[in-house]
Amino acid sequence: MFLDPNYIRNRIRTVPDWPEPGVLFRDITPLLQDPRSFRVLIELFVYRYMNQRLDLVAGIDARGFIVGSVIAHELNLGFVPVRKKGKLPFDTIVEQYQLEYGSASVEMHADAVRPGQRVLLVDDLVATGGTMLAGMKLLQRLGANVVEAAAVIELPRLGGAQAIREQGLNLYTVCQFEE
Amino acid sequence: MFLDPNYIRNRIRTVPDWPEPGVLFRDITPLLQDPRSFRVLIELFVYRYMNQRLDLVAGIDARGFIVGSVIAHELNLGFVPVRKKGKLPFDTIVEQYQLEYGSASVEMHADAVRPGQRVLLVDDLVATGGTMLAGMKLLQRLGANVVEAAAVIELPRLGGAQAIREQGLNLYTVCQFEE
Repeated sequence: MFLDPNYIRNRIRTVPDWPEPGVLFRDITPLLQDPRSFRVLIELFVYRYMNQRLDLVAGIDARGFIVGSVIAHELNLGFVPVRKKGKLPFDTIVEQYQLEYGSASVEMHADAVRPGQRVLLVDDLVATGGTMLAGMKLLQRLGANVVEAAAVIELPRLGGAQAIREQGLNLYTVCQFEE
Repeated sequence: MFLDPNYIRNRIRTVPDWPEPGVLFRDITPLLQDPRSFRVLIELFVYRYMNQRLDLVAGIDARGFIVGSVIAHELNLGFVPVRKKGKLPFDTIVEQYQLEYGSASVEMHADAVRPGQRVLLVDDLVATGGTMLAGMKLLQRLGANVVEAAAVIELPRLGGAQAIREQGLNLYTVCQFEE
């Protein structure tokens, strides 16, 4: 056992034609289900961020909650959710972003972050980068210093990493699927 | 700092009239956002389950992911999601349950559990118990031994704990809100 990203990559299941024909869906559930690979995954993030003086981890609804909350706890930080619209009960701020057809929105509690806090933004997968950038904008509107965006999987062909970096945010991903 | 459930209870925010008039919503986001109370919460679960020879933790979509995944990681176990219908890409099994008006469904991957595995089922809150019982049924259909159901919050007036216990499953909750 060692902290090799290929150890993670090999435990991700590819499901063809889901959610629609022609799409290869990258499924992290076998990775999370196995305690060894789940632990290696979290360690990869923990070693990267343990000396970054983070104040908070924000995780994106819903698979980003699974990875983000564990990273937060391992680093002894608080966790805040970036949720799909309509799920948070208190005062919120909202960001809309474009999908291939139509748009979607993400929301955060207005008191989720204090100005100047150093925040790590976490999701499971980066495709076009739309959700991650919307999360970044929410955090920045609350005055956060978004230190980095992090995800388990990146699909480089869809350009998300480039889109995120063009907005001045670095993206770290554990593994990439080119095809 | 000590493992007092009231320390957790005091950090839960009550939002009146959400999601509809007359409802007092119990909001765990301030609890998760504060690293101290987040840690105490997890320790309460970890000390309860560390000698229970668990094999796996199942967490319910979506707030149950936040708490369940951290408990799994702290106990060095795998994590499996119980999801709202239509979110899981591989072969699934489904359970429908009744809501006040209409019904809802939860789903698990058919290979999420091996027969005989000792599983802890986790959500953030138990109201009527419908979601928790549907999760229990999914796990049992896959041959799991559901050791206990656990949640942060219980609303005893809505009868969920009793309904769960009547189905032969013990429920552990960190704090209760009577009103």
